[in-house]
Amino acid sequence: MKSARIHTYREPLKVEEIPKPGMPRGEEVLVRIGGTGLCHSDLHIMQGDWASSIPVQLPKTLGHEVAGWVEDVGDSVPSPSSAGGLVKGDLVAIFGGWGCGACTQCKSGNEQLCNYARYPGVTDDGGYSEYILVPTYRYLVKVDKTSGLTPVDLAPLTDAGLTPYRAIKKVRHLLGPGKIIVVIGLGGLGFYGMQYAKILGQGSVVIGMDRNEKRVQDITNAKMVDHVLSISSNAPEVREQITKITGKGVDVVIDCVGAENTIKDAFRILNKGGALVVVGMFGNEVKIPLVPAIVNEYHVQFSLWGNYNELCEVIELAKQGKISHNIQEFPLSEINKVLDMLRNGEIKGRAVIVPEK
Amino acid sequence: MKSARIHTYREPLKVEEIPKPGMPRGEEVLVRIGGTGLCHSDLHIMQGDWASSIPVQLPKTLGHEVAGWVEDVGDSVPSPSSAGGLVKGDLVAIFGGWGCGACTQCKSGNEQLCNYARYPGVTDDGGYSEYILVPTYRYLVKVDKTSGLTPVDLAPLTDAGLTPYRAIKKVRHLLGPGKIIVVIGLGGLGFYGMQYAKILGQGSVVIGMDRNEKRVQDITNAKMVDHVLSISSNAPEVREQITKITGKGVDVVIDCVGAENTIKDAFRILNKGGALVVVGMFGNEVKIPLVPAIVNEYHVQFSLWGNYNELCEVIELAKQGKISHNIQEFPLSEINKVLDMLRNGEIKGRAVIVPEK
Amino acid sequence: MKSARIHTYREPLKVEEIPKPGMPRGEEVLVRIGGTGLCHSDLHIMQGDWASSIPVQLPKTLGHEVAGWVEDVGDSVPSPSSAGGLVKGDLVAIFGGWGCGACTQCKSGNEQLCNYARYPGVTDDGGYSEYILVPTYRYLVKVDKTSGLTPVDLAPLTDAGLTPYRAIKKVRHLLGPGKIIVVIGLGGLGFYGMQYAKILGQGSVVIGMDRNEKRVQDITNAKMVDHVLSISSNAPEVREQITKITGKGVDVVIDCVGAENTIKDAFRILNKGGALVVVGMFGNEVKIPLVPAIVNEYHVQFSLWGNYNELCEVIELAKQGKISHNIQEFPLSEINKVLDMLRNGEIKGRAVIVPEK
Amino acid sequence: MKSARIHTYREPLKVEEIPKPGMPRGEEVLVRIGGTGLCHSDLHIMQGDWASSIPVQLPKTLGHEVAGWVEDVGDSVPSPSSAGGLVKGDLVAIFGGWGCGACTQCKSGNEQLCNYARYPGVTDDGGYSEYILVPTYRYLVKVDKTSGLTPVDLAPLTDAGLTPYRAIKKVRHLLGPGKIIVVIGLGGLGFYGMQYAKILGQGSVVIGMDRNEKRVQDITNAKMVDHVLSISSNAPEVREQITKITGKGVDVVIDCVGAENTIKDAFRILNKGGALVVVGMFGNEVKIPLVPAIVNEYHVQFSLWGNYNELCEVIELAKQGKISHNIQEFPLSEINKVLDMLRNGEIKGRAVIVPEK
Repeated sequence: MKSARIHTYREPLKVEEIPKPGMPRGEEVLVRIGGTGLCHSDLHIMQGDWASSIPVQLPKTLGHEVAGWVEDVGDSVPSPSSAGGLVKGDLVAIFGGWGCGACTQCKSGNEQLCNYARYPGVTDDGGYSEYILVPTYRYLVKVDKTSGLTPVDLAPLTDAGLTPYRAIKKVRHLLGPGKIIVVIGLGGLGFYGMQYAKILGQGSVVIGMDRNEKRVQDITNAKMVDHVLSISSNAPEVREQITKITGKGVDVVIDCVGAENTIKDAFRILNKGGALVVVGMFGNEVKIPLVPAIVNEYHVQFSLWGNYNELCEVIELAKQGKISHNIQEFPLSEINKVLDMLRNGEIKGRAVIVPEK
Repeated sequence: MKSARIHTYREPLKVEEIPKPGMPRGEEVLVRIGGTGLCHSDLHIMQGDWASSIPVQLPKTLGHEVAGWVEDVGDSVPSPSSAGGLVKGDLVAIFGGWGCGACTQCKSGNEQLCNYARYPGVTDDGGYSEYILVPTYRYLVKVDKTSGLTPVDLAPLTDAGLTPYRAIKKVRHLLGPGKIIVVIGLGGLGFYGMQYAKILGQGSVVIGMDRNEKRVQDITNAKMVDHVLSISSNAPEVREQITKITGKGVDVVIDCVGAENTIKDAFRILNKGGALVVVGMFGNEVKIPLVPAIVNEYHVQFSLWGNYNELCEVIELAKQGKISHNIQEFPLSEINKVLDMLRNGEIKGRAVIVPEK
Repeated sequence: MKSARIHTYREPLKVEEIPKPGMPRGEEVLVRIGGTGLCHSDLHIMQGDWASSIPVQLPKTLGHEVAGWVEDVGDSVPSPSSAGGLVKGDLVAIFGGWGCGACTQCKSGNEQLCNYARYPGVTDDGGYSEYILVPTYRYLVKVDKTSGLTPVDLAPLTDAGLTPYRAIKKVRHLLGPGKIIVVIGLGGLGFYGMQYAKILGQGSVVIGMDRNEKRVQDITNAKMVDHVLSISSNAPEVREQITKITGKGVDVVIDCVGAENTIKDAFRILNKGGALVVVGMFGNEVKIPLVPAIVNEYHVQFSLWGNYNELCEVIELAKQGKISHNIQEFPLSEINKVLDMLRNGEIKGRAVIVPEK
Repeated sequence: MKSARIHTYREPLKVEEIPKPGMPRGEEVLVRIGGTGLCHSDLHIMQGDWASSIPVQLPKTLGHEVAGWVEDVGDSVPSPSSAGGLVKGDLVAIFGGWGCGACTQCKSGNEQLCNYARYPGVTDDGGYSEYILVPTYRYLVKVDKTSGLTPVDLAPLTDAGLTPYRAIKKVRHLLGPGKIIVVIGLGGLGFYGMQYAKILGQGSVVIGMDRNEKRVQDITNAKMVDHVLSISSNAPEVREQITKITGKGVDVVIDCVGAENTIKDAFRILNKGGALVVVGMFGNEVKIPLVPAIVNEYHVQFSLWGNYNELCEVIELAKQGKISHNIQEFPLSEINKVLDMLRNGEIKGRAVIVPEK
């Protein structure tokens, strides 16, 4: 089967033929891939940025946002009449945090935080391919085909559409009527983040912020949130801009960028008791001025990806038509070109790679 | 000034002239009344139903859902430039839980739960009148006049529009995508309750249930919630009706009736881990079958009214146009006729009594 | 192997030889049993009380509180160097909620609430035997042998020692300095419950209540809690007794009995905002007077057993010597005699059945 | 009356005679001071460190940790039979966050976070004096004299004994059996903090850490916590030291210092999902490495002082003998000498200034 694989750090992926995985055994499921989302993390991995903290054994097929159809199941996979049961042809999204199933994190439902977890596209071969072997049916979310959702819709939900959901859910008790929530960075994660801010915000006013003037214009025109703010040039004035809109500061900031600039902005606009949730990984360090942080009782939360149930909730929103997507589709053979586009900020929303027929 | 007062249990109110309260002193504020909501509790009080548990010293001006304009302030009331400051003419809603301000409940913001609280229309003269004296400016919510809201809009928010808000807020951590919330009883409280279920539900599917076929039809036509269910006749079939809609049971029930029937219905439809919040007071006793309750880990919460901050949140929703009202306005002189209408279920939504000019 | 099995409802168990389970396959583990706790639920099952709600396919080996040593493992069980890994001879407690692993409840760590769960001693052969086959190593808690704990200590922790822990954990946010918590019923569950009330109570005053004068005396002498109350005769006076001790009512009641009487007592003593958690199953119905419940904003929580992580926490307390046990040990051959003793209230604390060597 | 007042930044306090406050009016209460705790914040104020963020109008009597006896009450103060009622001679602790009573923070019980708050020893004359005028009886906590507590015991509870309590309460849901909590800095705040970690820790293992070898020895000898760690020299080895004790990292760190060093230590020892609460203000900036923070889902909470109800809870612990004090008493006339001792780290625990008779 054709797969896009990393052989050497800082070089393009090699699109090459490798053997299709063998028959699934036990709880394993073989999935025919219908779409795999392209993620900034792929760039970091290819660049070797995380080689020490998240080592990848080369060569490896990248791609951790995967959806498709069940091709074959191992003999311990239950039949469709049972919980979690699957049969050939089922539409599935792949939950990518393949935890050990036995530790405290796994046993509290956070398999993606397992210290022993495997991840497709990192420890195991991932989704830039035609087929992928999933170690247990318990990491698949079966999606009703009558929903009209396709693997291309589903793939980005497993990461870009999941990460900001968990982030906002962590602070939803701080939201409600009269509260203000700001989402910084309105690209891949932030595009979904804005929508979750409306849904989980319980009547909060939602403000989007981005440095890309064009993106700001698009989202303003689409009326996706209450206000969209361009912060391209005069960052120190962000507090004034916010105050002009809301008459006060904000209660929650979701930073989908995580750069030094955006974090500074967050602390410029937070109200007393306010919370910052960081999901973006562009920066190196978060710096917080101590005395104001204490006097204002700020709360800073870091959030990583999401868990299986959260993925189900996100897919439920998609099934009910409560979130919209912003997806560009590309064939597997063009992956290196698309990675370049992502690197250069030329992807609007999320790029999804689809294997050729 | 003209006031509608109870002199004897089980007799109509007397609409009579009484002296206008004197000049406010200290933190007191005299409010010129613009509207006072009529509540089932008034019927219970008049009927003497609660004479032992909530004694009223007769005669007394009833009416606890009050809004109007500041007429005069005591000399310890801050000027409008300070927090809580007020000046003649300000539009205000009256928070009716006049707690002692010093006990644990008051100090946690739940003044309405204070063991020593006074209440307009119960311990103190209430709002079926032209003026009302409020013991401290700290029980008033000032509303921006540019909001377009009137005292007639605001009055029901102080109780009918507040009680279901607190009820749903208590269980909002159980709501979200894929969850189902049912509001039973779509009249005064439930009309607001449905709307809060949408706002606080974070993507939950919202179902309204009522035994009044006409009301069910109106709300269905207004598309206020995802589904409306008439439960007029075949109560035991309610589980089937719900399952037909949702494919499963429900996660939260807000019972705005509190009758034996509605509570039975609630336990017929709750999922494992489900919660029932009771705010309606029509019944005498809540009966819960023990073994199923334990096996399903049900949670039953009773909820009373709301606190000052919750009232501010509800008014914020009204200011932002996020909730709609269902109000019929009547002159003070007709109050006994309107009480009869309420008794006979002839009021749609909430009746508001307005003093004659 | 010798097992104690139910063949017919309302008849004694048959102590008989049945074949030892075969070699464990896949993730299965064969456990040599070291002790199995005797539970009131066994009496209910034998009596056929729950035949409709929790059907048992006869004959069946009863016993759901089980601990022992690993005898053999299937070929998918990890080696001890990995998470959850096991090897022959390991000391283990058996978590008894054998969920499907794929549903929302399992994926949030509450496998005991899974709609498709299997249970030892109910759906599968249980612990009144010499060996038991556990379907996956992920339902075992490995216990360090240097802890000094034995299977006889561990067995009751898997249910009697787990159920009140979860119950109190559900309301621990209501506890703290100045709060009062009452545990009703100081036998099997309540004996552990009192201790958890001290540990999780965060400075709360802990009161035990029981109708058995002898038990009250023992616990008073052992100084296990701040106060112990005998409520043998004058139930309506319970409020006075409590007020004499605390100067006020109580904030949380943990009812380990669940009888009509004890629930009535709970509502006699709860403060405004108070919570009742019911774990005992002796009664049929919980009756709550509606108007007082609303005026006082009571909440009532039903709680069932506990989850895997909670079992680990309970075992951690035992390892650290923070809880004491109250166990009587009996040989498997005497099980019917011991069941009679339990039925007649002659067991102090928890009886544990041990297979003969 | 004799008072210790700041006239000029960076100069000693002037101990001088000023007029005793006049008769209390309205809700005011005049308190005869029995003891006032000396706080590092006093040094910061005297040094002018916070002159821009927390401006003090000079001259001013410092001292914000105050307790004493009611000397006289205004005519709106309720009689002792009512909630919050007071009479001459009552033993009282002064809650020092004198909020406006009308804003969202005040109405949720966090008067100390009010944007318009006044503070004794900062905006108003404080406690290094013989008498203090408190603006309303609602900021006093009446303490039963039979408790045996004295103003000298009570004074430090209003800040040093309150701040770490709130800090730990904010993360108590993360604590319990099997969890590890570390308190860094075992002086004024930390001395209380360790004890709260035991009480609110719900079975957590509690570790104290300090750079002062002598203090570490004293606390080790007093067996106040499970482990005490001297971190005087080899900070990078702190992870090893912790692992040696616990076999893993820690779940919660309470940093009562807030220096660059201690915050670095915190992130060296936190487990995945761990929380850092910062209450100490010795540093300027908190620096957090971004990628590890996200991968580990850390949360960082800043906490300031405490609210009225939390002060009541802390005093309740003292009344029940559940916390011990570490107090040195000095006469008002020696205050400048004692400030020097505090500056030089020569105070063990908390110094309390007592007016001469």
